[in-house]
Amino acid sequence: MSKPLKRIRYKKRDRRIEVGASPGSINISEDALKPVIMVYSYNDKELIKSEGKTVDIILKQFKKCTDHAHWIQVKGLGDKKLMEEIGSHLNINPLVLEDIVNTHQRPKFDEYDDYVFSTSRIIHFNKENELVNCQFSSLIKRNIIISFEETHDEYFEAVKARLEAGKGAIRTAGPGYMCYALTDTILDNYFVLLAKIGDMLDDTEDHLYSSPDKSVMYNAQALKRILITVRRASWPERDKINEMLRTENPLVSPEVKIYLRDAYDHCIQIMDLVESYKEITSSIIDLYLSMVSNRMNEIMKVLTIISVIFIPLTFIAGIYGMNFARVDPVTNKVMPDNLPELYSPHGYYYALLGMFIIAVIQIIVFWKKGWFSKL
Amino acid sequence: MSKPLKRIRYKKRDRRIEVGASPGSINISEDALKPVIMVYSYNDKELIKSEGKTVDIILKQFKKCTDHAHWIQVKGLGDKKLMEEIGSHLNINPLVLEDIVNTHQRPKFDEYDDYVFSTSRIIHFNKENELVNCQFSSLIKRNIIISFEETHDEYFEAVKARLEAGKGAIRTAGPGYMCYALTDTILDNYFVLLAKIGDMLDDTEDHLYSSPDKSVMYNAQALKRILITVRRASWPERDKINEMLRTENPLVSPEVKIYLRDAYDHCIQIMDLVESYKEITSSIIDLYLSMVSNRMNEIMKVLTIISVIFIPLTFIAGIYGMNFARVDPVTNKVMPDNLPELYSPHGYYYALLGMFIIAVIQIIVFWKKGWFSKL
Amino acid sequence: MSKPLKRIRYKKRDRRIEVGASPGSINISEDALKPVIMVYSYNDKELIKSEGKTVDIILKQFKKCTDHAHWIQVKGLGDKKLMEEIGSHLNINPLVLEDIVNTHQRPKFDEYDDYVFSTSRIIHFNKENELVNCQFSSLIKRNIIISFEETHDEYFEAVKARLEAGKGAIRTAGPGYMCYALTDTILDNYFVLLAKIGDMLDDTEDHLYSSPDKSVMYNAQALKRILITVRRASWPERDKINEMLRTENPLVSPEVKIYLRDAYDHCIQIMDLVESYKEITSSIIDLYLSMVSNRMNEIMKVLTIISVIFIPLTFIAGIYGMNFARVDPVTNKVMPDNLPELYSPHGYYYALLGMFIIAVIQIIVFWKKGWFSKL
Amino acid sequence: MSKPLKRIRYKKRDRRIEVGASPGSINISEDALKPVIMVYSYNDKELIKSEGKTVDIILKQFKKCTDHAHWIQVKGLGDKKLMEEIGSHLNINPLVLEDIVNTHQRPKFDEYDDYVFSTSRIIHFNKENELVNCQFSSLIKRNIIISFEETHDEYFEAVKARLEAGKGAIRTAGPGYMCYALTDTILDNYFVLLAKIGDMLDDTEDHLYSSPDKSVMYNAQALKRILITVRRASWPERDKINEMLRTENPLVSPEVKIYLRDAYDHCIQIMDLVESYKEITSSIIDLYLSMVSNRMNEIMKVLTIISVIFIPLTFIAGIYGMNFARVDPVTNKVMPDNLPELYSPHGYYYALLGMFIIAVIQIIVFWKKGWFSKL
Amino acid sequence: MSKPLKRIRYKKRDRRIEVGASPGSINISEDALKPVIMVYSYNDKELIKSEGKTVDIILKQFKKCTDHAHWIQVKGLGDKKLMEEIGSHLNINPLVLEDIVNTHQRPKFDEYDDYVFSTSRIIHFNKENELVNCQFSSLIKRNIIISFEETHDEYFEAVKARLEAGKGAIRTAGPGYMCYALTDTILDNYFVLLAKIGDMLDDTEDHLYSSPDKSVMYNAQALKRILITVRRASWPERDKINEMLRTENPLVSPEVKIYLRDAYDHCIQIMDLVESYKEITSSIIDLYLSMVSNRMNEIMKVLTIISVIFIPLTFIAGIYGMNFARVDPVTNKVMPDNLPELYSPHGYYYALLGMFIIAVIQIIVFWKKGWFSKL
Repeated sequence: MSKPLKRIRYKKRDRRIEVGASPGSINISEDALKPVIMVYSYNDKELIKSEGKTVDIILKQFKKCTDHAHWIQVKGLGDKKLMEEIGSHLNINPLVLEDIVNTHQRPKFDEYDDYVFSTSRIIHFNKENELVNCQFSSLIKRNIIISFEETHDEYFEAVKARLEAGKGAIRTAGPGYMCYALTDTILDNYFVLLAKIGDMLDDTEDHLYSSPDKSVMYNAQALKRILITVRRASWPERDKINEMLRTENPLVSPEVKIYLRDAYDHCIQIMDLVESYKEITSSIIDLYLSMVSNRMNEIMKVLTIISVIFIPLTFIAGIYGMNFARVDPVTNKVMPDNLPELYSPHGYYYALLGMFIIAVIQIIVFWKKGWFSKL
Repeated sequence: MSKPLKRIRYKKRDRRIEVGASPGSINISEDALKPVIMVYSYNDKELIKSEGKTVDIILKQFKKCTDHAHWIQVKGLGDKKLMEEIGSHLNINPLVLEDIVNTHQRPKFDEYDDYVFSTSRIIHFNKENELVNCQFSSLIKRNIIISFEETHDEYFEAVKARLEAGKGAIRTAGPGYMCYALTDTILDNYFVLLAKIGDMLDDTEDHLYSSPDKSVMYNAQALKRILITVRRASWPERDKINEMLRTENPLVSPEVKIYLRDAYDHCIQIMDLVESYKEITSSIIDLYLSMVSNRMNEIMKVLTIISVIFIPLTFIAGIYGMNFARVDPVTNKVMPDNLPELYSPHGYYYALLGMFIIAVIQIIVFWKKGWFSKL
Repeated sequence: MSKPLKRIRYKKRDRRIEVGASPGSINISEDALKPVIMVYSYNDKELIKSEGKTVDIILKQFKKCTDHAHWIQVKGLGDKKLMEEIGSHLNINPLVLEDIVNTHQRPKFDEYDDYVFSTSRIIHFNKENELVNCQFSSLIKRNIIISFEETHDEYFEAVKARLEAGKGAIRTAGPGYMCYALTDTILDNYFVLLAKIGDMLDDTEDHLYSSPDKSVMYNAQALKRILITVRRASWPERDKINEMLRTENPLVSPEVKIYLRDAYDHCIQIMDLVESYKEITSSIIDLYLSMVSNRMNEIMKVLTIISVIFIPLTFIAGIYGMNFARVDPVTNKVMPDNLPELYSPHGYYYALLGMFIIAVIQIIVFWKKGWFSKL
Repeated sequence: MSKPLKRIRYKKRDRRIEVGASPGSINISEDALKPVIMVYSYNDKELIKSEGKTVDIILKQFKKCTDHAHWIQVKGLGDKKLMEEIGSHLNINPLVLEDIVNTHQRPKFDEYDDYVFSTSRIIHFNKENELVNCQFSSLIKRNIIISFEETHDEYFEAVKARLEAGKGAIRTAGPGYMCYALTDTILDNYFVLLAKIGDMLDDTEDHLYSSPDKSVMYNAQALKRILITVRRASWPERDKINEMLRTENPLVSPEVKIYLRDAYDHCIQIMDLVESYKEITSSIIDLYLSMVSNRMNEIMKVLTIISVIFIPLTFIAGIYGMNFARVDPVTNKVMPDNLPELYSPHGYYYALLGMFIIAVIQIIVFWKKGWFSKL
Repeated sequence: MSKPLKRIRYKKRDRRIEVGASPGSINISEDALKPVIMVYSYNDKELIKSEGKTVDIILKQFKKCTDHAHWIQVKGLGDKKLMEEIGSHLNINPLVLEDIVNTHQRPKFDEYDDYVFSTSRIIHFNKENELVNCQFSSLIKRNIIISFEETHDEYFEAVKARLEAGKGAIRTAGPGYMCYALTDTILDNYFVLLAKIGDMLDDTEDHLYSSPDKSVMYNAQALKRILITVRRASWPERDKINEMLRTENPLVSPEVKIYLRDAYDHCIQIMDLVESYKEITSSIIDLYLSMVSNRMNEIMKVLTIISVIFIPLTFIAGIYGMNFARVDPVTNKVMPDNLPELYSPHGYYYALLGMFIIAVIQIIVFWKKGWFSKL
């Protein structure tokens, strides 16, 4: 990336704050997308998919597939009525519904009587190269996992592929495992993002060493901003996974916890990478500032030395450009003391020689003082 | 906000420190406002309001509404006698009264025999755009909650609206819930403040990228100051809510604790936002300083290069401006060695050509050294 | 405080370190003041005061007042024999005596078999406006509290006034309460000091915005130093009070602990204020450095632009000041190519016009580049 | 190291991230080396070595040496089939196999039913002076320890020599001790690396004091980067050893724990050295920046003083170079007021004297102001 | 210390790292001094001293003094055979012997079956004013304490004097007390070192305020380095003493623990002082950098203003030094428009006046803009 990174744009979202509102009231932001619902019902034998826009699609599938696990994927949160219907059908606490639609939650894990609720942050560059930081929430209840995403982007293709392939634990290990699989996909994407940032850092550093310009500063600051965002998401994510590991809740089975421990390690690796990258970023900025300052100093020093060498020479030329008169034009009186050098047959050559000697002496003095050596 | 933020004014309050005073002595600052008392008595069926300036209004309401919960809202603390009367009627420890009127407390939660006491900080911009940081304290006792505010500003309109509307838990869940509702309103206002700060940060950053001037520095520093203030309030606020969550005191019922857990999450979100904003602020300042320095360096470099190009040329002009005489005006002796160039038919053009060549060489050398490229 | 703060002088004390000395040996520094002893014996009915310079005054009072609590106030520590006598009469461990006279202890609370020992730091500006940081130690034993101060300054006037007035708990709640009252007075004085620092910070900031000069830097650094001193005292002070709160020792009664909890809150408020003030100080320094740098850059830029505008003009004047000859004075040969402009009837005006145009072009170019706008 | 350190190259490794992949899937990076297997079977009497490239070599040795402990050293991980065969023969969890081949793990210690798994980071300069940061993992199961390294470098020569010499606990204390011996060798190499860094820091500092140039900055930053890498490895390494010390697992015997405590101390020493070196590095950078800035300031000051001394002199020469006419060439009118100095017999000497005096006054003034003293 | 501190020299020691060596192997560095052994056997009645170079001296004394406590002081560690003999006679674990001769240990306290082992760092300036950071280790076993020092310097004179004087607990309280006495002497010397550093800081600060030059920077950085060294030693020292306080081992008796608690307080005071001094050092560096920058800016500003005032004047002199001809020397044509000012009778005075006015205007403008005021 030798071209400067543009200022990283963050997809702005409207944050509605209704001061003093009753807790559990659902305020959907105006730019929220209309929901699309995908229902995957699966057991070790079959996988039944259906898609729709209303809560009916869910109920129909529930009725049809009685000995299946269900993954209900809701993409887009912009339908207050739908959210309330889902809430009432699944008997979800209004406070949880509020957390689902108010998409600025930190990752967390909350346990309720007959379900558990967790949120994560999805962070990635979208096609317009904007950094998107949106919320993923999921709720596990008996044999159901229902996940909520803010966008219509297809983020979990790999999980769906594994689900269709039907191999591995994904078909048999229940909604807790599905929750792990989704979370792990999100973490994998953090690695992808960090690998990208790592490459950008390398590019920025190459750029710094080859031809430092101010894009280095902008890029480094921009990368720092992304790293801050990732860190803000990964720290509570770790706490969340830790809480999931320590819960006694049967919805998070011991089998799933083995995998979660793996996700926990990944999360620590992410935090570790973020810290390292932040240190590298700071180091790049420091080095850049020092290089800029050094280079500027070099230039100014050379320029000033050139000026200073010429200044006494110009002064001498000025001296011999003075018009002190040898002969008074009015009285014709001769004044031999006025600028007698001008009337010496070789005055000009002596003057040039004098100037040359002064210049050489100056250069020698500056050389001796080490002013020509690079700092 | 492309116009510079004025230096943020903090409403100054008089802080009276009476060294060595006996604990529990009530010292009211001179600029404290005179109290106004509002009493709301409510149960699931009715809501009775009354307003007054003396403690009688409270007692009267108590007598009238025996199976109601009471919210006594005291706005303005500037009446020592009234405070003492309230204290004696409700049997409040003098140390608590002292904390109520000495409005520099950090948020805290204290339990006493038959009541609990908590304080928060209300932080907002008032109509004069001054940042106001004033104290809110509340005391829960049996079916009574009594709240104290420093100003007459209407801060809890939304809560009162919900109280009048009479829906939700507010009418039935007792004074603990009312305490939660008031605290949550305060936290909501932190979000409003932070959203405003977030917008200001965005504006400042836009300004930085489009036309950096020193208002960027002032704004960033001013925002940092506000963030420090909010952080100072939100950290102990979190501790306070945490203590409320862990208390066994029946005045904070398990039902209320569910809501408080929500408030706790909000508080952590606030702290998280504050930290992020502080990092962004620092990053803006760093970038601004680097941009200013770069731009200044650019200007100085260009100016110095212009000077240096002209210096040798001016020196040559000086040389040929010297008056070494070809003919001694006194003796008329011819001195052909003095400045013979002046007497060459095309000397002038040669001189101009020489100057041009020197200028071109200088430009080429500087170009080769990369001094014209932007740093 | 628009005038610069002088460098803050710290009252220097001699610190005698006798390497490898046996523990518990009392080394009194040479500049220690001679002790003055004040004994206050009091119960709910009467208060008996006496003053002296030897241990006899204490013993006499003990004999006279058998059902009283005693506060023995020792001011000045410069008498080894007296200290040892007090130690032997009250049966104090030599290590404690060493801590009392070696006045560089951090605040701490130590429990011994039949007494408790605590130290605090008294920090204030004395009359010469030097920052004094001296040690206060107190020892509670049965119905006796004995306090040691380094100076003869009257620091606890307010406590004595309350003692004489005889109201409140001070007469009846025993030496533990007296210890609290003295500690709280010390903490109150921290608030006084911090209020002063707060005012100085405000003044420094006003000064920064109105007419920044280097006193801003000096003041900010000086205030930072004081804040470091206060922080060094207040952190262990909090730990000390916390230990007093948690002790099971009957010398610190539950009644006193209620008040100590108040002192604990004060201590946290102090630490909190110190941290805020430190952040504000840093912010002032950053802003000052940025302002100085900006202002300097502005000046240098304007000056350099003026130079650069004149440089080509001076060069042109130099060109037309050259003496290329139109007529060779020796051969009288005419050389029309040498500086023909000089012999044009309106050459002078053309030259001035050319210079004017060059100057205008330069100004326009610099303007277009935005070099005249403030950074 | 007076010559500048080249930018430190990190051996880049391909990091394959397969988003959403099923846990335990083995993805071998394309640049992974082909494995070489070395099997050492030993007891207190004999040591049997064999080498091969397939899993058969292991199985053969197992059959042959039934009452021996086995150390299977696998160097190079680039053979998916081999890894899977090893996994199935030793009954290793796929998640562990994934951790072995995905060589970006942090040091960790995991316990499984009948084996324990641990990873460390090997950090050293290879022959091309690139910093290599590769993974070492080992798995202990009954009497077997199997270790995996990324490279073919011979890293454990000393351990092998001790194994062949047959003295000490290495032959008798089982695979747990072997795991300790390998880990300790890795930690010893950290000391070697840090000693090298220490020498480089000393050289850099010598360089800084003798002839500071920008290599100081580059070196310091480069060393900082290595230190960050070592710290990232040593912190979790300590945690890992701590977990090994606290485990109840019989595979880590109490005898081995005594040695591990020693390794733990080493690990803390390493972290301690890293922190110290980081502080020294920062201090070098600060000092360098200050020296560069001081030296630059000195040079610019001297140059500017030279210019300023000549500027008024050149101005005076300019004055007397003006052509105000004493006699109008057209009308021959005499104008005695025009530059009368030029027609004074000793005007030239007076002018030179005036210039000399001005220069001397300037020098005296600058001297008095202390501008010639070094900053 | 108004003269610059020379760069602080650290006595360099050879650090031998034998990678992969068997644990407990004794590698003595080549520059280690030959050992001298002093044996002090004492009880409350008598003190018997002897000195030698072999282990025999110890054994002889053991035989002679059967009801005494023994302090064996080994100074210099450069004799592998002697160390091994001591190890075998006292039955010391080889890992402990390795720690004794490998003199880069952090302070620590280890308990073994029948002895306890502890190390500390001795830090002081030696006679050549080099900072020496060497290891002190001691081992307590029954009635024996054996201490090891790296150098032959007499460090514990005061302890020996107390031992000879025979008063205090030193003769009767056993080897645990002796260990405390030696440790406390080491800590006392930290105070001596810190007092020296404190004085140096004061001197540096005085120097900073009176005549800042670059020695301030060097001194501050040098002091920072020493402080880092002291901190590295004092943090683990505190942990070590804390472990000694918490151990149940009878070799550290409750009586000794009372004294150790005192040493613990000293250790915290040391850490506290180190932190304060570090903050003061940073503050000095910041202030110095700001002062240098301010002073430099002042000088450059004044110089530049002088230049700029003369530039237009020199330009005007250049104008009137041009040679536009009033009369064409060839055709004798009169050209009245060329520089008519030159032929005005008072042209010269008008020109001088014009220059004077321009200079005054410039000075007034710069004054108005406040450019003459100090920043």
